[in-house]
Amino acid sequence: MEFVTALVFIFIACGCGIAWAIFNWIAVHKIEIHHKHEGLTEKLQGAEQEKIETLLEIGEHISDGAQAFLKEEYTDCSVFIAIMAVALIFVSPWSTLAFVLGAATSMLCGYLGMAIATAANFRTAFCAIRSLSDAFQMAYRGGCVMGFLLVSISLSILSLIIIIYNSVLVEEGDLETLISMFDYVAAYGLGGSTFALFGRVGGGIYTKAADVGADLVGKVEKNLPEDSPKNPATIADNVGDNVGDIAGMGADLFGSFAESTCAALVVSSTQLRALDGGVLNISIGQLMYPLMVSAFGIGICILVSGYAVFIQKVTDIHKIESSLKQQLLLSTVALSPIIIGISYWALPADYVMIQADGTTQLENLKPWHAFVCSLMGLWSGLLIGYFTEYMTSHSYTPVREVAKSCGTGAATNIIYGLALGYLSTIVPIISIAVTALLSMKLLSFYGVALAALGMLSNLTIGLAIDAYGPISDNAGGIAEMSELGEDVRTSTDALDAAGNTTAAIGKGFAIGSAALVSLSLYGGYLTRIQTYKNKDGEYPYSEGAKIDDPIIFAMLLIGAMLPYAFSAFTMKSVGKAALQMVEEVRRQLHEHPGIYAGTEEPDFRACIAISTKASLKEMIPPGLLVIVTPTAVGLFFGPQAVAGLLPGALVSGVQMAISASNTGGAWDNAKKYIEAGFYKNDAGEVKKKGSDEHKAAVIGDTVGDPLKDTSGPSLNILIKLMAILSLVLAETFCKTGWLYSE
Amino acid sequence: MEFVTALVFIFIACGCGIAWAIFNWIAVHKIEIHHKHEGLTEKLQGAEQEKIETLLEIGEHISDGAQAFLKEEYTDCSVFIAIMAVALIFVSPWSTLAFVLGAATSMLCGYLGMAIATAANFRTAFCAIRSLSDAFQMAYRGGCVMGFLLVSISLSILSLIIIIYNSVLVEEGDLETLISMFDYVAAYGLGGSTFALFGRVGGGIYTKAADVGADLVGKVEKNLPEDSPKNPATIADNVGDNVGDIAGMGADLFGSFAESTCAALVVSSTQLRALDGGVLNISIGQLMYPLMVSAFGIGICILVSGYAVFIQKVTDIHKIESSLKQQLLLSTVALSPIIIGISYWALPADYVMIQADGTTQLENLKPWHAFVCSLMGLWSGLLIGYFTEYMTSHSYTPVREVAKSCGTGAATNIIYGLALGYLSTIVPIISIAVTALLSMKLLSFYGVALAALGMLSNLTIGLAIDAYGPISDNAGGIAEMSELGEDVRTSTDALDAAGNTTAAIGKGFAIGSAALVSLSLYGGYLTRIQTYKNKDGEYPYSEGAKIDDPIIFAMLLIGAMLPYAFSAFTMKSVGKAALQMVEEVRRQLHEHPGIYAGTEEPDFRACIAISTKASLKEMIPPGLLVIVTPTAVGLFFGPQAVAGLLPGALVSGVQMAISASNTGGAWDNAKKYIEAGFYKNDAGEVKKKGSDEHKAAVIGDTVGDPLKDTSGPSLNILIKLMAILSLVLAETFCKTGWLYSE
Repeated sequence: MEFVTALVFIFIACGCGIAWAIFNWIAVHKIEIHHKHEGLTEKLQGAEQEKIETLLEIGEHISDGAQAFLKEEYTDCSVFIAIMAVALIFVSPWSTLAFVLGAATSMLCGYLGMAIATAANFRTAFCAIRSLSDAFQMAYRGGCVMGFLLVSISLSILSLIIIIYNSVLVEEGDLETLISMFDYVAAYGLGGSTFALFGRVGGGIYTKAADVGADLVGKVEKNLPEDSPKNPATIADNVGDNVGDIAGMGADLFGSFAESTCAALVVSSTQLRALDGGVLNISIGQLMYPLMVSAFGIGICILVSGYAVFIQKVTDIHKIESSLKQQLLLSTVALSPIIIGISYWALPADYVMIQADGTTQLENLKPWHAFVCSLMGLWSGLLIGYFTEYMTSHSYTPVREVAKSCGTGAATNIIYGLALGYLSTIVPIISIAVTALLSMKLLSFYGVALAALGMLSNLTIGLAIDAYGPISDNAGGIAEMSELGEDVRTSTDALDAAGNTTAAIGKGFAIGSAALVSLSLYGGYLTRIQTYKNKDGEYPYSEGAKIDDPIIFAMLLIGAMLPYAFSAFTMKSVGKAALQMVEEVRRQLHEHPGIYAGTEEPDFRACIAISTKASLKEMIPPGLLVIVTPTAVGLFFGPQAVAGLLPGALVSGVQMAISASNTGGAWDNAKKYIEAGFYKNDAGEVKKKGSDEHKAAVIGDTVGDPLKDTSGPSLNILIKLMAILSLVLAETFCKTGWLYSE
Repeated sequence: MEFVTALVFIFIACGCGIAWAIFNWIAVHKIEIHHKHEGLTEKLQGAEQEKIETLLEIGEHISDGAQAFLKEEYTDCSVFIAIMAVALIFVSPWSTLAFVLGAATSMLCGYLGMAIATAANFRTAFCAIRSLSDAFQMAYRGGCVMGFLLVSISLSILSLIIIIYNSVLVEEGDLETLISMFDYVAAYGLGGSTFALFGRVGGGIYTKAADVGADLVGKVEKNLPEDSPKNPATIADNVGDNVGDIAGMGADLFGSFAESTCAALVVSSTQLRALDGGVLNISIGQLMYPLMVSAFGIGICILVSGYAVFIQKVTDIHKIESSLKQQLLLSTVALSPIIIGISYWALPADYVMIQADGTTQLENLKPWHAFVCSLMGLWSGLLIGYFTEYMTSHSYTPVREVAKSCGTGAATNIIYGLALGYLSTIVPIISIAVTALLSMKLLSFYGVALAALGMLSNLTIGLAIDAYGPISDNAGGIAEMSELGEDVRTSTDALDAAGNTTAAIGKGFAIGSAALVSLSLYGGYLTRIQTYKNKDGEYPYSEGAKIDDPIIFAMLLIGAMLPYAFSAFTMKSVGKAALQMVEEVRRQLHEHPGIYAGTEEPDFRACIAISTKASLKEMIPPGLLVIVTPTAVGLFFGPQAVAGLLPGALVSGVQMAISASNTGGAWDNAKKYIEAGFYKNDAGEVKKKGSDEHKAAVIGDTVGDPLKDTSGPSLNILIKLMAILSLVLAETFCKTGWLYSE
């Protein structure tokens, strides 16, 4: 395929994606909520006016809080990004440029996501007054804006970088510069992931400190309902959803997307060679296959989400979850033949993979080798998604068992929840392992990168249904705070419960793709160190990574420990920040009895300030752990040490991440199951809010909060960031390794 | 060193060890508690007579319950052992013999441990009436009997097997048969570990089902104190300590000891060659170094424990923990010069390690290479022990922080406890990694086996202080049930709190040594598959284990998942069995109100029956997971697949095991900290039993139970057993691998 042809299609797809996002953005903003609420249904006449004003006010507070936090977070992170950017100049100024652009894209995507989510949240609550269907539409459209903007912007900026670097650096037919050009481009992924790390960790600590703190005093001590306007930490909790679950998650998945594309480009430029009349060569156009898959993914996902927006009607709360799941299934099915088509169109008809030393590693390769890898990724993503839903939705046995265990108290709830999380690793891990095995057999690490991209090819839909969750969660909070009434809250609760499940599905995707991305980056790293030639013209690291090499085994062990250390840091940070929040809430309720009586407004700004300060401070140590460890290990113990560290962190981190997010999701939905009145004890009595069973469930939910929204999802970034950082620094490590020699 | 000389020393040491154990056994039994209690102190006159009778009765119930369970467990396991023994005939009848002997030794050790523990437990309670010092002595002497019997018996049986096999199978100077002889001997370790798996898992489920079940109804619902005689599950709980923490743990550590010795013998017979006037050779006597280290370990530990028994007086509850710690330190310090001496005496003055293909891998080796490895193991064991104490004792900050977090409820307690467990992996993992790295560099996998043996060289003391824990725990339970009074309970509580810490230290040792044992067995496995020659005279697996080999990476990932699946099974088993227990306890208390009033005896036999039945049934699936997975992977996907599976399970399992046992230990001691009245809230009020803080702490303790006593310690066996099983089946895997080819 010609480079230009590919670019035309890519930019058309990105344009369509952005247009579709803007269309939905406008549709969201069209719902104007006047103070005088003309033209509204009868439900809202008279005395309701005040409630609508409260709703608008709360929406504004949340939006202001989120903006203020992101501003501070971005300022702090910029310092760090700047330092790393300067350090990267020693690798190459081109890397620095790509790195900065990656970080900036990541920030932009996080910001845009937050902006649309804070516009959609109170409108969803408002629409829930009219009908469930409208509310669902609003929340889902908000998610679509985020999904399509993020993927389209990322893909177009990445393509622009490739165009510019290619025209400035590479002369026609100069393969060597083409290869090193993609090394520079890879820093785009590094920039994205570096910011994503702080975004995920900082946002995660913010949201869960507020959530846990609000629950501990509000629900457990004072028996206030969730999101009670009397609880000073409620607004901070809702701000948290937007900066953690929306902005943080957006940055995370942008990172995955950028890195898997970069990994595919780096590996393919080094290893993929078209067999053109007996001559082995490659042109930049033939390398565009991964970007083409993403571009067509945008196109298909527009159609699929259009179906949800224009045709589907969610009239019943039982249909919410299945509608969202259907989006995933439809996009997977529709994308499958498209990917097969692109493979034949964009890839050389005959090609080989060459090894570090120039010899052929795999030969007789056809387009089908590539589409099998992509489809393996795509479908195993769906499998992981469906299985995650099974493990975390209260429509199925596992969560119901957890809910049932609340009958004997919080301890059994925790034991069952932990066991559920551990068990839930089995299917995703086997899917990832089989996908990795087959795609490595077919196309080496290029196959793994394609599998990762395949899994992310319907990322727009994945992001949309994922972002739908926190928007609904916020809507519920706003409905409660504005006291919109029981039936509105029932609708938003149902939207929210489905959102917990889709959030868990989104995390499943994020983890699965992170594992594959990280593996393909690791492949790139190994290729780099194996081809490193020292001053004496030797290849000191050509042996590869053998498990029985002492330094590799030792580092495999230490790598597997890192996710534990990282989780310890992040969980304790949440715990510490939550304790501060508890003290503030207690102080306010104690010093101002009017708050509890409902005659005085709580000072929610003080709570926002606590979450902001704590999260910005606490995100530093875990962030540094991830960046400093591989760098220090590489500099002091050499490239082989890192070749053990990375797979250790990968194989251990994936398990922890899956188990943490599913445990948390299950606890949250077990609580929702009880709240919805589905739980009956052995005597057949229904136990709802306020019962001992519900209290036990709340404890599980609170423990699950930092697991599922702070440490779990941050682990994805840990494994990806360590891998891409090592790839960028591979040559540096080969030259240093001061403390250790083989 | 001559073979005969080595044997003389080994048998003298074993004889002394057994004599010392018998001496303590007699000392324990000398404390006779007559119904008419002649010659007792005044405290026990008059009305107290009845209490003493209760004490004796309860002691008998516990002993009966434990014996009955072990009998059933042994019967069930024997079937399984028999099946495996028959299957092993296809490997070699000699392997079968060693396998059966290993399993039998393991059962014997478990049984003897249980017998002494059930003799020492009620006597410890009785002695606590007189003085703390006497009670401590009694519990510690009980531990010593277990420790010295176990190590001495294992070492002598292993030596006997070597003598017999050597005289029957090996002709003087026939190196090839000597090597395969040690392959057969290795099945001794396999037998030990196979039984240990069921012992640990079955015992672990038994003890924690009873404990959790008793706590859930007794403490949480009915506000009964721990070990209340009104709680029908109390006796089952105390039986559980003896079958889980004593018999199960004994079998586990016997397995570690046997396997690390076998690993050292297998690796050294294949790779270690003495340089005798330019000729490379090895005699069986020169291979006896590892056994000599263990033999002298017994001798030194007799002296060290003699100091505790005859000289040291524990008069103050604050001295308990430090006395026990001192035992560890003293034995480590005393053993260090001895190990150096043995190295120069028992090893060849010059030797080399040869590779699979006969070429020299490491040359110019001296005795110091060996003692550095052993000492690394010995001292890193001490470091792990001390660090574990720091993380799990309520004398230090970490546990106090966890206790403090109970001020905001159970959820923060759980979050802080989990974070503590995750954090506690750092130091042990770095110790193990550094030990593995250096010992592999010095002596390849032989070095790793020596490090494991070094860590276990003071195993007798380790076992003694470990077994001391459950004995004290039982003593506390018996004191409570016999209503011996507040001050007796204070003494036994203090003994028990120290026991929680030493149990955690013991688990630290068990995990550290298991990791090293497993690594050295893995080394043996790799050597076996690399030297495998197929029918065409090729070496198809000579490449070793490269991480970027597709099947190796995929299996690394799946291996890392196994500890999660295993923990899910065991934790859920405990949860399920505990729920049955809860129902039974509730039923009894409901149908017989006289029990709560204290006028009617509870039916504790029904509870014992539930624990017995549930644990025997539930131990099957996790047991099969461990045995079937590597076997099936090897048979279907070949030896390379297993070469990925084992390190995956190792690096992931070690982290989980450490974090699970430390989290559980910390929660238990945080609860004890509050119960002892050390906890003050922010207002300076002391919060003790019955407060909300205490309730939160009890929830943490209950969650920690299955983590620290069921899944955590069973994970050691998982990683060891998978490795030794694969070693024994290595050749079979090379011939099969039906579904996968490179």
